[in-house]
Amino acid sequence: MTLLDDTLKKIVPADSIIRNEAVNYINRLTMPQWALGRVLDLAVELAGIYRKVHFSTARKKIILMAGDHGVVAEGVACQPQSVTAQMVENFVHGGAAINALAGAAGAELLVADIGVAADISHLYPAVINRKIAYGTRNMAQMPAMTEEEARRAVETGIEIVYANDESTDLFAVGEMGIGNTTCSSAVLAVIAGIEPQLAVGRGAGLNPGLLGHKAQVIARAIDKHKPDKDNPIEVLAKVGGFELGGIAGVILGAAACRKPVVIDGFISTAAALIAAKLAPESVDYMIMAHASAEPGHSAMLDFLVKKPLLDLDMRLGEGSGAAVAMPILDSAAAIINNMATFEQAKVTDEGVR
Amino acid sequence: MTLLDDTLKKIVPADSIIRNEAVNYINRLTMPQWALGRVLDLAVELAGIYRKVHFSTARKKIILMAGDHGVVAEGVACQPQSVTAQMVENFVHGGAAINALAGAAGAELLVADIGVAADISHLYPAVINRKIAYGTRNMAQMPAMTEEEARRAVETGIEIVYANDESTDLFAVGEMGIGNTTCSSAVLAVIAGIEPQLAVGRGAGLNPGLLGHKAQVIARAIDKHKPDKDNPIEVLAKVGGFELGGIAGVILGAAACRKPVVIDGFISTAAALIAAKLAPESVDYMIMAHASAEPGHSAMLDFLVKKPLLDLDMRLGEGSGAAVAMPILDSAAAIINNMATFEQAKVTDEGVR
Repeated sequence: MTLLDDTLKKIVPADSIIRNEAVNYINRLTMPQWALGRVLDLAVELAGIYRKVHFSTARKKIILMAGDHGVVAEGVACQPQSVTAQMVENFVHGGAAINALAGAAGAELLVADIGVAADISHLYPAVINRKIAYGTRNMAQMPAMTEEEARRAVETGIEIVYANDESTDLFAVGEMGIGNTTCSSAVLAVIAGIEPQLAVGRGAGLNPGLLGHKAQVIARAIDKHKPDKDNPIEVLAKVGGFELGGIAGVILGAAACRKPVVIDGFISTAAALIAAKLAPESVDYMIMAHASAEPGHSAMLDFLVKKPLLDLDMRLGEGSGAAVAMPILDSAAAIINNMATFEQAKVTDEGVR
Repeated sequence: MTLLDDTLKKIVPADSIIRNEAVNYINRLTMPQWALGRVLDLAVELAGIYRKVHFSTARKKIILMAGDHGVVAEGVACQPQSVTAQMVENFVHGGAAINALAGAAGAELLVADIGVAADISHLYPAVINRKIAYGTRNMAQMPAMTEEEARRAVETGIEIVYANDESTDLFAVGEMGIGNTTCSSAVLAVIAGIEPQLAVGRGAGLNPGLLGHKAQVIARAIDKHKPDKDNPIEVLAKVGGFELGGIAGVILGAAACRKPVVIDGFISTAAALIAAKLAPESVDYMIMAHASAEPGHSAMLDFLVKKPLLDLDMRLGEGSGAAVAMPILDSAAAIINNMATFEQAKVTDEGVR
């Protein structure tokens, strides 16, 4: 049995009995009923994932997957492909947004080269070398990768999680890859069955006049390769990207390890669609960080029936939204771990229970 | 000159030149333009408050004002008045939501008795003793307090800020007081000129069937005392509460010290209305933590022309929303302090600037 198949078998829903226990416990804490709203919903969700009412989110790791995209040859990205490698170097030197935000959140950042289109071996092992190829092929002309490569991308994410499971309470995902909003929009269009023009956005800052072109490139690729929406590995291979596969793997690995995984924005959520198609129960382990400014993101969230924690007009990627959201999970943990019950504190619950 | 008058004189708008400098600096950092959206808006806002592009939000203090309300005699609250004192004891012992959340945010919690209707002297000095009276009077029958008391409440908040200014980068406000959504709704109705029935909500969990009664009690008090909406001390005295005055004072003190102050939910924002009427420039120093589940809160935010950071269905008070929002300010600080510029990181800015 392959690592992927084995991992999929391990994924079961979050524990609804523990969730109920958490609800009952929270109702005994010294505050009006459910007065912390979604912070309490989150505490319940996390309890169901960890299989315990009291849990820790202290040891955090953000896994950032970097890869490149042959489709940039079609003029769908506003930045040159060389920026991917430059930004990976920036991550290593600590100068990027995700470095600053991971630091603020108390999270460790792991960066993996899963398909950067440049030799960045001088950055290994500070960057984890899991390069599958020097970028995907141009999906406007041929499948972005083989199904074997797609499977390897997903297994890469799983392996990184398994190697870090024991030292991690809370995973998060992020990415870097010039052109990756294009393949993310393509994955959305295929899996959720929506028109490419409704799935595209400006990414890092594409000229609005080129949005129609971006949608056409995607429509052409889908039309040419006809990916089967119910075969997520095929979708990933034909119109996806290496970092999307890697992130899907991190999500599946976290779900198999019964750890929550904070999903960043548009690209990470496209990967979450792949993960959800491979293992619907993995959705229970996803915590959606924020509503991306990229227009297609809300359709992704609707497909997953998930609500994000934040809505701050962010559209950077790298895991930046996940990092900003992580302290809310710490808040949820602090509430359920550290508050007194009405009985303990000798506070009357008259009128609020 | 009184402390209040002196403080009001010190309050000037945030610095727009530094804000512009911050915008220009952020545009040089290694990310697509304004790709972190409101996190960057927040960084700019904070720079304008601190008068420097690089600043720290590390040393945080949440000032929680506790007071009681004579109007509870009208049956507008679902909990007995004794809960105020019980919860103050809970704060001292560390068992309340705000203790857990302040801990998670790395904030120190200061609790002041500004008008609890019980002898809680056994809790001093862990609780700061600034008791003005044993609760307000019942505003349905007479003014809640004298104008002298209202002024003292505001000056109490100012004094606490001045005593903590040197050891604090970031202030936040919170409160405890059974019945204080009623006086907050009354302050909203008067200052924003809206009907009491649109200003009320269920507070800690009032029976929905009693909402009309709550609105009538407020309408009667306003009708009886006819507070002048342009005299905020008079509004506070006639239909306010001691903790609202104290919080207004904290806001004014923070503005005078050029420090940001994170405003919690419905009650704290009612106090912010008082502060804004006393010193319109103080609004520049207010960071709105979250959209409260209490229905009148959005009218308050509209009046102040402010947008909250979070929307998590919270309605607890105590400063809980402010504590959950504080790490977002740390994220903003981390971005502007710790990121590399395109030049420093040798990342090309082609296509994104």
